[in-house]
Amino acid sequence: MPFKISKDSKYIPGAQTRNRMDETLPKEKRLMNYEMLKHLLDDIEWDIHPGPLSTYGDWPVENREEFAFVTAGRLVIVREICESGKYNAICLMGGGQPGLFEAMEIGRQYGIPVTGNATAQMHIATMLGNKFSIIDLSEAHNMYYYNLVIQNHMERRCASIRNIDFPLPRPGTPPETPMIGEERERALRGETSLAVERAVEEAVCAIQEDGADVIMLGCSATFWLQPFIQKGLDGLGYEVPVLEGYSAGIVMAKVLVDLETVASGMWFPPVFSKIIRSKTLFDFA
Amino acid sequence: MPFKISKDSKYIPGAQTRNRMDETLPKEKRLMNYEMLKHLLDDIEWDIHPGPLSTYGDWPVENREEFAFVTAGRLVIVREICESGKYNAICLMGGGQPGLFEAMEIGRQYGIPVTGNATAQMHIATMLGNKFSIIDLSEAHNMYYYNLVIQNHMERRCASIRNIDFPLPRPGTPPETPMIGEERERALRGETSLAVERAVEEAVCAIQEDGADVIMLGCSATFWLQPFIQKGLDGLGYEVPVLEGYSAGIVMAKVLVDLETVASGMWFPPVFSKIIRSKTLFDFA
Amino acid sequence: MPFKISKDSKYIPGAQTRNRMDETLPKEKRLMNYEMLKHLLDDIEWDIHPGPLSTYGDWPVENREEFAFVTAGRLVIVREICESGKYNAICLMGGGQPGLFEAMEIGRQYGIPVTGNATAQMHIATMLGNKFSIIDLSEAHNMYYYNLVIQNHMERRCASIRNIDFPLPRPGTPPETPMIGEERERALRGETSLAVERAVEEAVCAIQEDGADVIMLGCSATFWLQPFIQKGLDGLGYEVPVLEGYSAGIVMAKVLVDLETVASGMWFPPVFSKIIRSKTLFDFA
Amino acid sequence: MPFKISKDSKYIPGAQTRNRMDETLPKEKRLMNYEMLKHLLDDIEWDIHPGPLSTYGDWPVENREEFAFVTAGRLVIVREICESGKYNAICLMGGGQPGLFEAMEIGRQYGIPVTGNATAQMHIATMLGNKFSIIDLSEAHNMYYYNLVIQNHMERRCASIRNIDFPLPRPGTPPETPMIGEERERALRGETSLAVERAVEEAVCAIQEDGADVIMLGCSATFWLQPFIQKGLDGLGYEVPVLEGYSAGIVMAKVLVDLETVASGMWFPPVFSKIIRSKTLFDFA
Amino acid sequence: MPFKISKDSKYIPGAQTRNRMDETLPKEKRLMNYEMLKHLLDDIEWDIHPGPLSTYGDWPVENREEFAFVTAGRLVIVREICESGKYNAICLMGGGQPGLFEAMEIGRQYGIPVTGNATAQMHIATMLGNKFSIIDLSEAHNMYYYNLVIQNHMERRCASIRNIDFPLPRPGTPPETPMIGEERERALRGETSLAVERAVEEAVCAIQEDGADVIMLGCSATFWLQPFIQKGLDGLGYEVPVLEGYSAGIVMAKVLVDLETVASGMWFPPVFSKIIRSKTLFDFA
Amino acid sequence: MPFKISKDSKYIPGAQTRNRMDETLPKEKRLMNYEMLKHLLDDIEWDIHPGPLSTYGDWPVENREEFAFVTAGRLVIVREICESGKYNAICLMGGGQPGLFEAMEIGRQYGIPVTGNATAQMHIATMLGNKFSIIDLSEAHNMYYYNLVIQNHMERRCASIRNIDFPLPRPGTPPETPMIGEERERALRGETSLAVERAVEEAVCAIQEDGADVIMLGCSATFWLQPFIQKGLDGLGYEVPVLEGYSAGIVMAKVLVDLETVASGMWFPPVFSKIIRSKTLFDFA
Repeated sequence: MPFKISKDSKYIPGAQTRNRMDETLPKEKRLMNYEMLKHLLDDIEWDIHPGPLSTYGDWPVENREEFAFVTAGRLVIVREICESGKYNAICLMGGGQPGLFEAMEIGRQYGIPVTGNATAQMHIATMLGNKFSIIDLSEAHNMYYYNLVIQNHMERRCASIRNIDFPLPRPGTPPETPMIGEERERALRGETSLAVERAVEEAVCAIQEDGADVIMLGCSATFWLQPFIQKGLDGLGYEVPVLEGYSAGIVMAKVLVDLETVASGMWFPPVFSKIIRSKTLFDFA
Repeated sequence: MPFKISKDSKYIPGAQTRNRMDETLPKEKRLMNYEMLKHLLDDIEWDIHPGPLSTYGDWPVENREEFAFVTAGRLVIVREICESGKYNAICLMGGGQPGLFEAMEIGRQYGIPVTGNATAQMHIATMLGNKFSIIDLSEAHNMYYYNLVIQNHMERRCASIRNIDFPLPRPGTPPETPMIGEERERALRGETSLAVERAVEEAVCAIQEDGADVIMLGCSATFWLQPFIQKGLDGLGYEVPVLEGYSAGIVMAKVLVDLETVASGMWFPPVFSKIIRSKTLFDFA
Repeated sequence: MPFKISKDSKYIPGAQTRNRMDETLPKEKRLMNYEMLKHLLDDIEWDIHPGPLSTYGDWPVENREEFAFVTAGRLVIVREICESGKYNAICLMGGGQPGLFEAMEIGRQYGIPVTGNATAQMHIATMLGNKFSIIDLSEAHNMYYYNLVIQNHMERRCASIRNIDFPLPRPGTPPETPMIGEERERALRGETSLAVERAVEEAVCAIQEDGADVIMLGCSATFWLQPFIQKGLDGLGYEVPVLEGYSAGIVMAKVLVDLETVASGMWFPPVFSKIIRSKTLFDFA
Repeated sequence: MPFKISKDSKYIPGAQTRNRMDETLPKEKRLMNYEMLKHLLDDIEWDIHPGPLSTYGDWPVENREEFAFVTAGRLVIVREICESGKYNAICLMGGGQPGLFEAMEIGRQYGIPVTGNATAQMHIATMLGNKFSIIDLSEAHNMYYYNLVIQNHMERRCASIRNIDFPLPRPGTPPETPMIGEERERALRGETSLAVERAVEEAVCAIQEDGADVIMLGCSATFWLQPFIQKGLDGLGYEVPVLEGYSAGIVMAKVLVDLETVASGMWFPPVFSKIIRSKTLFDFA
Repeated sequence: MPFKISKDSKYIPGAQTRNRMDETLPKEKRLMNYEMLKHLLDDIEWDIHPGPLSTYGDWPVENREEFAFVTAGRLVIVREICESGKYNAICLMGGGQPGLFEAMEIGRQYGIPVTGNATAQMHIATMLGNKFSIIDLSEAHNMYYYNLVIQNHMERRCASIRNIDFPLPRPGTPPETPMIGEERERALRGETSLAVERAVEEAVCAIQEDGADVIMLGCSATFWLQPFIQKGLDGLGYEVPVLEGYSAGIVMAKVLVDLETVASGMWFPPVFSKIIRSKTLFDFA
Repeated sequence: MPFKISKDSKYIPGAQTRNRMDETLPKEKRLMNYEMLKHLLDDIEWDIHPGPLSTYGDWPVENREEFAFVTAGRLVIVREICESGKYNAICLMGGGQPGLFEAMEIGRQYGIPVTGNATAQMHIATMLGNKFSIIDLSEAHNMYYYNLVIQNHMERRCASIRNIDFPLPRPGTPPETPMIGEERERALRGETSLAVERAVEEAVCAIQEDGADVIMLGCSATFWLQPFIQKGLDGLGYEVPVLEGYSAGIVMAKVLVDLETVASGMWFPPVFSKIIRSKTLFDFA
């Protein structure tokens, strides 16, 4: 079961991101946090696509306008991958999963399941607890993510989105702003990391104040925090699962491949649908 | 108070659509259903933009993939209009309002309110009744619209989306398929129109079976139906408001201009936000 | 488009209220906060009705019992105005909008839309943000208002009602109790006002703690606070819309007049309804 | 435990209603459906008040405007009863329970619980099943009742309101219109009653189509139907409880007297509340 | 109206519990907090059953596994009581009401209503206020109770469950752990009780922070706190009802006996149901 | 990754069930519908436990009372399996998944994830669509399942439970009653099966009338229907996923093993919890 991992942008918040975009490197180097994912990939064939070149500028996506441009870029690639006939599942890599529903619409025309890092984490979180909170990194990204929660019918299962305030770099970022990518290197060296400290603190607040019993991560630039938050919570006595997006996207893709299924044709109807429903009901509430 | 009306695509389901894209015509000819809107425009200065050229093909938008491409195209135009400094409000014209939230994000950076035909209708509908139903024209468009209802927190106010089954033309459409644009001409000539008949029938079902007390319209290709459905319901004794999108978008833009306000900065945070909230709460449910 | 503004009671929490009831004054003097509303009234003909004499005592309405008596008094006037044939819309003036639904029931028999200050603010607030909070002035009024939120199906859009604790005067009020009307004069003179300070503080708490992204006002005695709260939030960096009731009621009345519509006949069925629904559904949740 | 039963109006849809208003009769004759309630009253002292004279006309209340006038009339009586010191509970008699919340506000100032026929039925219904449906008698009354369901936070427990279409008499009622009061006499004589037939039919539809598992009754003019509907359902094999309002109001008043409690002071705050909450939260959803 | 009170376990957190299990004592001694309940029992015949012997160990139930074993033990007794023909109602005694729904299923086969201490309190609480909070005694019991709230469709009416942290004794409990049973004796002697102090404090927090307006109690080991919390709140000016489970279970059993009804057969269908519904709907939300 | 599959009861609705209980057979024979599951088991080590002997009688579980007895029996086995140290995951086999939450509580003490057939299907269904419907086999089982939907916070994602009316055998079953187990053999022989016909019909109704876009199965006695319903829907043009419980439980157990996680300790707190939360919030709604 090979699958295709696309990438979001060419801006560089740290060494990992730089590697991700360097197509001369082996795929294991290009996949962020490979060490955390290795055991999930060992029994499958997989490949990783660098993703579309961003059209709005050369910094990472963070607000709705930028995500809309990335969505359009990604969909062209998704269709190409589906048409190639070489893959039986696609994981969109990137916390904000721009274009997931559109990609699921395309994928199902080819019988290929598509998963995203946000949606996959939310479904696993609701198996493990009653309410999850999301640790994310900036006001703009948080509110974009807010939209994802609502579109996934998860607003009642989401206790809160908590902000550790490490906005991604872009033109105008003050030079002294701490970068999330550097925090990772600091943490991996065993040094104190402000990002780790804040993330653990926000996770505890989410549990104590917001009623969360599971923690998940927002932007993919925070995914490396997973083992650090888990360790921090364990140390404080909290037996609370901490999820991250890449592993969630991968295991959920495996589930759909194992069950030989894709998203419902009533959710993403074919354009010449044989089936006409007179009404689409709303009794979610 | 001039404002700018953009357009969606270049495919041609009828004479109105053809006129809409003919930039040699005066703006009153290019604005679909101008006769229904004239009294709302007489006291303002306004202009209409033909919109972006579609990149996915030369037929009208109907599924999620196509809407994503139109969104990207539109946002470039929205930013240009905002930067021009010539307008104090923007109405996105088109029932599916691709890119509304992204356009609101851009607009608020310039203090310019942006309204869309779906969102505006929903807000007016909830002033007039307890639950509204939407008359729309195809399975694929209905399910795209479903997403709009959810994103607008309106799933509890929406009784149903009802389908009159007049899909828009695209490659592969069987030649004998009835076109919604031709139905309009038929109805205006006083002839029996299948689209009108189905729309009235679905509106009655929405009221009797789904609990709707207000009717609104989905795709802009159905907006001409508004007076016909209203008349049909009146004739059957139903004192039920029927809304359409262009007028709704225009009056709501006027409201925001009158109140000198735009969407909240907490909803669409600036990228270098001065305000950091530690948490974003979800107690909608 | 002239319309009619009624008034609530004869008790006097400040100079404005005194003017409101002095029928020898021109209508511009009698309309509270006229300076904030002038631009909305310049293009229409309008008049203001002093409202019914309170029957429960000579102090302002604040609890449910008192609101029920004012409702009965108001409805007689609403019917008279409708029967006069001189007006095409009615705005009920007063934050608690006693009798709005009953007045809408009467108005629709004459094809005359009726708006209220609470309902109108809530609908505008939900166009501008995800959740609003209400700044109101006493426990009793807050809990009356709570009822309005629920009746308007807005409990999921309302983050909180916040209390600045300036109860209206009534027999038994301790003499030293600060009066909201005096706060207004103090603020207009440029002096420090406790009411303004508390209102800004509660607005910030509503945003930071309760998840609000729009602020609206409860009792009409607080409506003058609108520009002061807006300025206070702006100064702190919060780009958050602040609404007040009179302007909201007026612009929403204009919307309904522009669209030539009134509330649904299924919501307020005529007593000899031609249409019988076998069931009224509840799938709001 | 004596308690006070008030009455709604002087119009006469049948012999029972006529008796109800004849103050020369003993209280047992004036209490509608006394035979159904006798066993609940035998162990208490009780009295019945004929209620206020209607001010809007001489027909029974059916729409919102009329209910608002009755509310104002009733509250004067409720206060008198509380001040008399002779009663330890008040049951408002009448399906639409005009003024219940206001009367609860008054009652709690005297430590006297007040119950209403709609609210009491809803609470008992939710002890007996997952969802209840309401059998009521006209479009206008149904939609007034709709409001009661919402104000009682019961919209998720109410499956539907079903209409047997026996509107109450009023000026303009066509002479041949069947009267609900005459149906009662017909049914008691053992004759076929259209009202009984329709009520059983609607109850079955509520169970089979709307998901109800308990049935309750709306307007007090339908309360006599309770044993007939119960028998009808039993005969069809439905083991479904059928409730009516008078007995529900009485047993719930007994509960509150037994527990020596009244409604919360946070729901109906005293006007000079010692307790100030900074915020009133809305997380019902 | 005699009814049967069963008991939960043989472990001994205090003198009351010891008495409860001593079958040589008169029933008034065996019923915990009899002094609080006496006036509710004086007009009925009643008996109390000691309940099943716990099979998982000899300590009180506190987590889900233990409650499941008690449920199985209780149901055998419930069926015996029903078959005896000597009782017309059953109150399950014990805050966690293990097996209530199963016992209701059994009881309705015999026409015997069954009530539980949690469900009964919740229904009374929602008559007295908008939202209730529950005071309970340990994390494990709180989360078991959480499940009860959800099964009773009360999650929107429950503001919070608050923990006073007095876990019940079990093997491994550190010797110095304060016991809730000893707190009762301390409080009854007029001494300061940490349990009372914490319970009042948590009740105030529930009102001020969580939006509760009624307080109820979780584990039956806390029921004795009811008058102490009520007095504590009264002293602080909070006019807020405080409920406890035994009295709630008893008055609700009386209601069902008075109305001669049991839970709906659509909720607990007989195994050879005469009625087949094709669908069971979910529009609770 | 070996895991343990327990069984429910010894009654015999068909040949498969008989094999399931014959411990002399190899595990592949004892696992119902092994042919549908083989590809999910090939890469793991697994074993199957026959489950507890039913204590209430010798027929299959169908109502709440019976499920409560099976729960108690199962939990003893679950604890033994956990203590054996031989397994790293447990799938409870049986559509009603009696004791799942209790088993999850036990399992997490040993770090062993536990999955159930109902919960697992619901989570997969919500990845594939907006709303699912459940095909189940009797009124009593349907209403037991109703409880599972609510406990899993899935009431808003569940469109309906539909009943094909094949109750399981028990004392008193009329001899001519068709057995679901015989329907399976009939269907496998290629003959017309009433169960298949009804199941396809109910699935179509669920999609067209109830708004479902995914189908799942209730009682494990219906799991064999999965390929037949899928084929039936495909043939009618419905591109709708159909799930069954055993495969769902297995793939979800793999997910949790792969992610090395178990249910949150805040959901199932240890009895001597190091972490005390003062409150447990309810803002699901």
